[in-house]
Amino acid sequence: MKIAVDAMGGDHAPRVLVEGVQRARDEYSDLEFILFGDEKAIKKYLQDSDRIEIVHTTTQILGTDEPMKAIRQKKDSSMVLAAQAVKDGQADAMISLGNSGALLAAGIFVVGRLKHIARPALMPTMPILNQEHGFVFLDAGANAEVKVSYLQQWAVMGSFYVKDVMNIEHPRVGLLNNGSEYDKGDKLHQEAYQALSELEGINFVGNVEADQILTGPADVVVTDGFTGNAVLKSLEGTASTVIKELKISLLNNGLRAKIGALLAKPALTSIKSLFDVSSYGGAVLLGTKVPIVKSHGSSDARTVYYALAQLRMMYNKKMLEKVMNYFDQEPVNKN
Amino acid sequence: MKIAVDAMGGDHAPRVLVEGVQRARDEYSDLEFILFGDEKAIKKYLQDSDRIEIVHTTTQILGTDEPMKAIRQKKDSSMVLAAQAVKDGQADAMISLGNSGALLAAGIFVVGRLKHIARPALMPTMPILNQEHGFVFLDAGANAEVKVSYLQQWAVMGSFYVKDVMNIEHPRVGLLNNGSEYDKGDKLHQEAYQALSELEGINFVGNVEADQILTGPADVVVTDGFTGNAVLKSLEGTASTVIKELKISLLNNGLRAKIGALLAKPALTSIKSLFDVSSYGGAVLLGTKVPIVKSHGSSDARTVYYALAQLRMMYNKKMLEKVMNYFDQEPVNKN
Repeated sequence: MKIAVDAMGGDHAPRVLVEGVQRARDEYSDLEFILFGDEKAIKKYLQDSDRIEIVHTTTQILGTDEPMKAIRQKKDSSMVLAAQAVKDGQADAMISLGNSGALLAAGIFVVGRLKHIARPALMPTMPILNQEHGFVFLDAGANAEVKVSYLQQWAVMGSFYVKDVMNIEHPRVGLLNNGSEYDKGDKLHQEAYQALSELEGINFVGNVEADQILTGPADVVVTDGFTGNAVLKSLEGTASTVIKELKISLLNNGLRAKIGALLAKPALTSIKSLFDVSSYGGAVLLGTKVPIVKSHGSSDARTVYYALAQLRMMYNKKMLEKVMNYFDQEPVNKN
Repeated sequence: MKIAVDAMGGDHAPRVLVEGVQRARDEYSDLEFILFGDEKAIKKYLQDSDRIEIVHTTTQILGTDEPMKAIRQKKDSSMVLAAQAVKDGQADAMISLGNSGALLAAGIFVVGRLKHIARPALMPTMPILNQEHGFVFLDAGANAEVKVSYLQQWAVMGSFYVKDVMNIEHPRVGLLNNGSEYDKGDKLHQEAYQALSELEGINFVGNVEADQILTGPADVVVTDGFTGNAVLKSLEGTASTVIKELKISLLNNGLRAKIGALLAKPALTSIKSLFDVSSYGGAVLLGTKVPIVKSHGSSDARTVYYALAQLRMMYNKKMLEKVMNYFDQEPVNKN
């Protein structure tokens, strides 16, 4: 398996990408890589070029670039070149820590959509309280508008992903809604409820609410990208606010609290690790012809390594082929 | 001013309602009350009936009742009787801790909508990190579907509320969106951005994102009720998950962490109080002919007292009259 790496995206590029790639290369003998980026900068961190090819470019899509414009105008950027390599069959998967919007655009317009999938979705893995594995959440922001058929496609893709990558036999699929009863939400959500229950072989467990998802009522939670984006950001924002507030009050409540803070440090670390999703790798852009992973711009080499392992698992389990086979046999309405 | 009180809704009814009412009565000489509920149960907690009238009923809308059916069939329930008293001009405001959906239905179909307001919205006050005052958030769940004109109406109502009740001179209004730039979100959100910027006398500060709202970029945050509900639940769910997880790890990490927990207790209490919004009173159903407040079913007497003070402030400042006057002079498009 060969992975195309946008070596220039993210806050600590190319270092974390080169380090993560080398770790994955040493761990998995079936992996090869093409790194797109500044050859000189890459070589600074590259200890051993075995199974690692470099394609030199200094053009880069910035976080501030307008996505569509960027992929149209910066055709020799590390991101677009990586996407093009996938498109041309030179690589089987792609990773980037760069501009999310541009990566989404590159995935859809350069790499192209998977057969049967109308709209690829962005799918992060999120934590479940007191459980080793998390749940996948899609769409987390790729599509502000949604149709019932998209939600069905995402439910199926999410299920195959959880089964193949997280080794959960009958993944429970939930529809994010504003109440648990079947008739909750607007017309779209009521129809989606019905459509999801009719999906052959999919373990639909009904509606799930945003205040419950971290307690694990479902392994796959589907929603439109607008709500998904807002929920994801609310979770992240609240967690970081609570941790910040806790630190402030531990430091401002005198000596007693300071000693408390010191002694409670392992507990604080454990809280933070609940929301440290780096061991899940990255968010998958699911529904393009090959798997594309977007890890956070601030990711370290460890996260890059996990993201590469995640791509390898999807590839080796032939996850996307299973999705296509599913829809070959069970076509869903296009409404 | 006379307030109609649904004395039977909530987990600790009628006790917390009777106690909260008595505290408000003792504090504010301009307040009178009509309590709807089981007279015997109410009298058990009523120490002094000065300015407190009781209308006896034993019928009650339960949390499990289907809202529309409940208000149609339980016309002699404490909630519907309280709403009817407001409708008939016997009271100037209403409070309930009962079934939210039923209260919403009673507000719209029994009390009726305010002039110019197409859809009342549910508006809780939420905390801002390191600030005494919070921000108001609407719609938090009354309307799953939304039009641009609703968002405009909610922005105006929210602004008058914050100005009158929270004493903030030029409340900043933000539109919840999936990015901060003006062209973010779907067509509706792009149009809403434009429409909100054109509102005369309203201090629109642009888009705000869900991971930022607790840091206070706006005093009024407007959104559709579906997203609003999901965001509100995400905030609550994450805060409670983090606090729970912290407790677990403090208790499971051995003696050192236990001592830490003991010493850090004031800090934990301070975190909890960040998310204890009881001092804000309750969520206002904003856009009905008179103000209706919905406090949480688990509210204590203190929260009821604050909610009554909140209704009194809205009434004394003639907040809803100001909203009507605004729209008399600045009609908004009905699309």
